[in-house]
Amino acid sequence: MPTLREVGEIEALRRLIAGGRAREGSAVPAGDARAGDAAEGAVVLGAGDDAAVLRPRDGHDLVATTDALVENVHYLSDWLGAEALGARLATVNLSDLAAMGAAPRWALVSIGARPEREVDDLVALERGIAEALEADGAVIVGGNLTAVAGAEWSSLTLLGETRRGAAWTRHGARAGDWIAVSGFPGRAGAGSRLALAMGEAARAPLWRPLIQAWGAPRSQVPLAMALAAEGAVTAAIDVSDGFAGDLARMCEASGMGATIDEELLPEDRLLEQAARALGVAPEELRFGPSDDYELLVTLAAAGRDACEAAAERLGVPFGVVGVVTETRGRVDLRDSRGEVRPMPRGGYDHFRAASPIR
Amino acid sequence: MPTLREVGEIEALRRLIAGGRAREGSAVPAGDARAGDAAEGAVVLGAGDDAAVLRPRDGHDLVATTDALVENVHYLSDWLGAEALGARLATVNLSDLAAMGAAPRWALVSIGARPEREVDDLVALERGIAEALEADGAVIVGGNLTAVAGAEWSSLTLLGETRRGAAWTRHGARAGDWIAVSGFPGRAGAGSRLALAMGEAARAPLWRPLIQAWGAPRSQVPLAMALAAEGAVTAAIDVSDGFAGDLARMCEASGMGATIDEELLPEDRLLEQAARALGVAPEELRFGPSDDYELLVTLAAAGRDACEAAAERLGVPFGVVGVVTETRGRVDLRDSRGEVRPMPRGGYDHFRAASPIR
Repeated sequence: MPTLREVGEIEALRRLIAGGRAREGSAVPAGDARAGDAAEGAVVLGAGDDAAVLRPRDGHDLVATTDALVENVHYLSDWLGAEALGARLATVNLSDLAAMGAAPRWALVSIGARPEREVDDLVALERGIAEALEADGAVIVGGNLTAVAGAEWSSLTLLGETRRGAAWTRHGARAGDWIAVSGFPGRAGAGSRLALAMGEAARAPLWRPLIQAWGAPRSQVPLAMALAAEGAVTAAIDVSDGFAGDLARMCEASGMGATIDEELLPEDRLLEQAARALGVAPEELRFGPSDDYELLVTLAAAGRDACEAAAERLGVPFGVVGVVTETRGRVDLRDSRGEVRPMPRGGYDHFRAASPIR
Repeated sequence: MPTLREVGEIEALRRLIAGGRAREGSAVPAGDARAGDAAEGAVVLGAGDDAAVLRPRDGHDLVATTDALVENVHYLSDWLGAEALGARLATVNLSDLAAMGAAPRWALVSIGARPEREVDDLVALERGIAEALEADGAVIVGGNLTAVAGAEWSSLTLLGETRRGAAWTRHGARAGDWIAVSGFPGRAGAGSRLALAMGEAARAPLWRPLIQAWGAPRSQVPLAMALAAEGAVTAAIDVSDGFAGDLARMCEASGMGATIDEELLPEDRLLEQAARALGVAPEELRFGPSDDYELLVTLAAAGRDACEAAAERLGVPFGVVGVVTETRGRVDLRDSRGEVRPMPRGGYDHFRAASPIR
């Protein structure tokens, strides 16, 4: 298997671009596309020139995000192959667009790889990115490849579209809005803690859903598109740092507070089992640091039923778990006896964390 | 001076965003902008949410590029301070848009920094990026900050606009077109070779223009905009790998060849002096690996005078140095006696280079 040093940058890029073209068929034109003929929403000119040329839809806004994954900071190579790493890189960015209610369109990839890296690994990384993007309607249109001496990294910039003025933000939540969340927050963090605490034993089938939530998260773009169609979302954020941290952030941006109803939270026996195995409280896993890439939204009161029905049609777990309150910055948890206490917080900080992996 | 580890990711990001807002005034709205009110071309929502929201001009194409700089691969910290590094990162991306004839608009920055990095260095890096972008009409709209253990890196994605279908490419050159180039190709490579060969002695005032061409290149965006207005550019590329390598690349993409007239090349006594000091042939510096970020274009025969006049009005050195030929893949050099020989080639490859610095 040839390495980057053996084949060189130009040939490696050629193989990456060729791999992409073969997969995408004629979706991304080569250098000879006639720029005048492309339809709105099309890629006029893909990878291979100084820059890509894209044709946005008139009357739409562009939504742009960038996120990077660094070896030994965001992932362990032993636990994440090149293709899964690519899928994860796509997902963390797709999740940001989901949180804006934007339809993903175009991506640029920037990669720092060691010279001894096998070219096939890069091709697998690109395939992982491209296939995850494609599932949500986006394509890679350009990129950059550079040599690094130490830890490898990859950074993706993703562009999407909304109708003009229709993008969701974190700051639109109003008192009385419902708070709803998709999936099972806390599972990704539980998976990473199991892997670090148990090593190989965490590969047991029992823990698979948690390890997958950590290593192979899926974006909630389809859910976001379905909710956007209902027009009831007032604010949104993706759960990338943990339920409590991201909820607090959305409340802060909106100048509001929140009360979460413990009884409304999705039951998650596997998470409780993991908490016992790790010797921690279940709510530490449920609310603490966890990059689940689930969608956390607030809904105008009248839109609740339509949104829950839309999620059900997609088969995506999604439901109301609480309500927005007027007490700015205060996030409470109400238990089954009606007693209210502050939600245990926690957030993740790369630069200060005791454990470097998330 | 506090480090990233001391203040943490959230506070570091807050300072970066606050620094940007203070400089840009109201150009980039905070979270409370009303999305419906923004004009075309505006930033509807800047850094601080899950993604930025931008409002492209109807009837325009979007041009997108990404480029990264890695410590000890693309630069030496001893020779390039944080602010100059930022300016350089902006310039390498601006230069790609110049080569497409696109007006720069919006940028996203992804940074990998060591925890012991001082926050003020990051603020200086952001300032360097932002000021170089601003000079060419673009603003930072979002970014990402992550911890790294080894070499630091920064990656920028830059978006620009052209009228629909008007973007330049590498593949439009036709036999008989003029070949023209800006500035003094080879100077950046000469500067880097002097720094590596001489160390501190390369800081002598004599070499300053070469060291600056290497460390503090300027984009040719204003020239590109002026040339775009003339409508005569048939193909373009930026000189980021070296004159010979990039010219060959443009010819290859166009299915053409080229003859460069030695007598038409801009005289560069300082480059010749550097060649003597380094004990190499002047043409090795002039045509070999060098990231000058100059603009190399082909011009329809009738557009030469107007383009040269437009450059002169800007005060930018720019002129015809040769002609496009039909002999695909062949790039010749014609000397003052009319004798023709193949142009000495050379290009840069990060993964195979003997010296890791460019």
